[in-house]
Amino acid sequence: MATMHDVARLARVSVSTVSYVLTGTRPISQATRDKVLAAMAELDYQPNAMARGLASRRSRIVGLLMPMDERGLGATETAFVTGAAAAASAAGYHLVLSPVGVGDVDDLRRLASQRMLDGAVLMEVQVSDARVGALQEAGVPLVLIGRTGDTSDLSYVDIDFDQTVREAVAHLVGLGHRRIVYVNHSAATIEAGYGPAVRTREAFVAAMAGHGLEPLMIPAEDSAAGGRAALAAALARTPDLTAVLVMNESAIFGILGELTTRGLRVPDDVSVVSMVTSPQVAELATPALTAMTSPGSALGRMAVEALLRHLEGAGEQHQQLLPCALEIRGSTGPASTAPAGTDDLTDHIPAARTGRHRIDPTGSGPPGT
Amino acid sequence: MATMHDVARLARVSVSTVSYVLTGTRPISQATRDKVLAAMAELDYQPNAMARGLASRRSRIVGLLMPMDERGLGATETAFVTGAAAAASAAGYHLVLSPVGVGDVDDLRRLASQRMLDGAVLMEVQVSDARVGALQEAGVPLVLIGRTGDTSDLSYVDIDFDQTVREAVAHLVGLGHRRIVYVNHSAATIEAGYGPAVRTREAFVAAMAGHGLEPLMIPAEDSAAGGRAALAAALARTPDLTAVLVMNESAIFGILGELTTRGLRVPDDVSVVSMVTSPQVAELATPALTAMTSPGSALGRMAVEALLRHLEGAGEQHQQLLPCALEIRGSTGPASTAPAGTDDLTDHIPAARTGRHRIDPTGSGPPGT
Repeated sequence: MATMHDVARLARVSVSTVSYVLTGTRPISQATRDKVLAAMAELDYQPNAMARGLASRRSRIVGLLMPMDERGLGATETAFVTGAAAAASAAGYHLVLSPVGVGDVDDLRRLASQRMLDGAVLMEVQVSDARVGALQEAGVPLVLIGRTGDTSDLSYVDIDFDQTVREAVAHLVGLGHRRIVYVNHSAATIEAGYGPAVRTREAFVAAMAGHGLEPLMIPAEDSAAGGRAALAAALARTPDLTAVLVMNESAIFGILGELTTRGLRVPDDVSVVSMVTSPQVAELATPALTAMTSPGSALGRMAVEALLRHLEGAGEQHQQLLPCALEIRGSTGPASTAPAGTDDLTDHIPAARTGRHRIDPTGSGPPGT
Repeated sequence: MATMHDVARLARVSVSTVSYVLTGTRPISQATRDKVLAAMAELDYQPNAMARGLASRRSRIVGLLMPMDERGLGATETAFVTGAAAAASAAGYHLVLSPVGVGDVDDLRRLASQRMLDGAVLMEVQVSDARVGALQEAGVPLVLIGRTGDTSDLSYVDIDFDQTVREAVAHLVGLGHRRIVYVNHSAATIEAGYGPAVRTREAFVAAMAGHGLEPLMIPAEDSAAGGRAALAAALARTPDLTAVLVMNESAIFGILGELTTRGLRVPDDVSVVSMVTSPQVAELATPALTAMTSPGSALGRMAVEALLRHLEGAGEQHQQLLPCALEIRGSTGPASTAPAGTDDLTDHIPAARTGRHRIDPTGSGPPGT
């Protein structure tokens, strides 16, 4: 490993000159500076990160700021983090993971004032989010994963929820579904203005209206129990539902469990689509879930890359949406039109459906049908 | 926000003296230094992190070094990260997340030579792991989450796999199970010396021997398909199995799916215990999984706290094991002794079992029984 002495010898300057170039504590002529930097490059000299950071006014550290609770992150959320860490690492930057929730604005101001972060990527953005203003006031270059309500002067990457919901609804409508229930996050989450919950709700209403269908919606707590309760409530209110579109990865296994408990088969009785889901999570279910696959890793990478372009001075405002991709697995099929206990109607159903008629001999369809 | 000028005024020194105290570029008497530091504390002055880092030879940055692949992390693994980030943040440190796999020793040497990290926590440790030696040679204080083969001069925190496996086996044996199959990670993972796979395998052999039982074991790829294949292979080899103990969170939903496909009920026909699992993952299944709950968040926190004690000079070698806690949910019950199609034997089974007799009217028990 090359030392400061090696650099000084090659550049034919004193060791203190090398030190001044690094720390910026004394003015050094451009010619001398260039000689020293060339010697450093030739020797692959790794200066002390703090000295280099002080000299260049760049720490080469970017922050990934996100709330972290005891629950931890799901596999789908974690893909954002690993994508961001890989992009930072590939560009020779370091990614600091800072637990900064919506209420931690004072912590954020203190963090910004230390000038440790060259810039920040902010995750789990709320429609109204005080952290954005705090970082802007502190002059910290910023890219959001997600969007606030007013994004006119912000850079962000986010999921294209409009297109994602439109495609998911089109997939179900194409299979003959008309009574589709949208299972969202909790009512409290929607009221708090959590972007994905709010935006998909609006997109669902619009997409269903486009097909002349009623937008049936129900909130669910982020848990298996929440999913069970939501499905029970949905069936009580909409006994003729044939599909659920689920924007709640923590609830979806509860929904599947409740369907099993009630003797309802997926996809013969009820089709299920999971929104913003990773293939790993989709593959956990039996049958594997048809899902709108989250571009989490790509968005994490794109956010860091946009931030680094800002830091290099080349970055203009960057606003980019990426839709989730529809991946059809086993949990969606043609809409069941046969009322419970009428398996003999199978003959009247088009050929494409014959492989999918209900095979539950008890004929326990949705309650009320 | 206090400035360097405010500090200089309060300490009655020049601004350059404050700067010298921060950067360490000129020697300053202890008395003056103390005055300046007291003024900084009184004003809650936040110095430039790089300057403070250079002066104190401390960056207040610790690294969490872990391999990251496209798959991302599961909820259970992520708890280590969030626990570590919270502990660092609480102590006024920053946690850098560095993707450093077993093969990235050169990257690691470069990272260490930059002196950006005060210390490091290394995750996903292999029994033989070149990263440990590289960090030790570079003089980076180090705490492992996991263990290498020789830990004589290392600090680590890890799961107590012996006790965890012993408790899981005791739970199943207590329910009358004798034919218990251990589903591990893949054969390649075991051969590569991945600690949790190797240690639990040894612990399972010992625990079963302690009960005078045969240690039935099968590897599984880390996927739902891997779980399905492993269960099929286990049933082919051990048709009279009544319980599976699963050390593979990526495979367990495939195992549950394959049981459902074969008409085998959990826990009536086969009991299932998931090893080193978070409650969130356990609650996804129907019935919810009896699990040995991972102490991930606690271990992440303990690793960072042990590292910070090293950095403060107070830390002695720290070696600590924490067992997973048995949490009984719906996936375990008394061993099924009745061969398939013999529901009328229910009357002869002790009262404790009557709520658990098989309710599958087709009587499709494990093949071969």
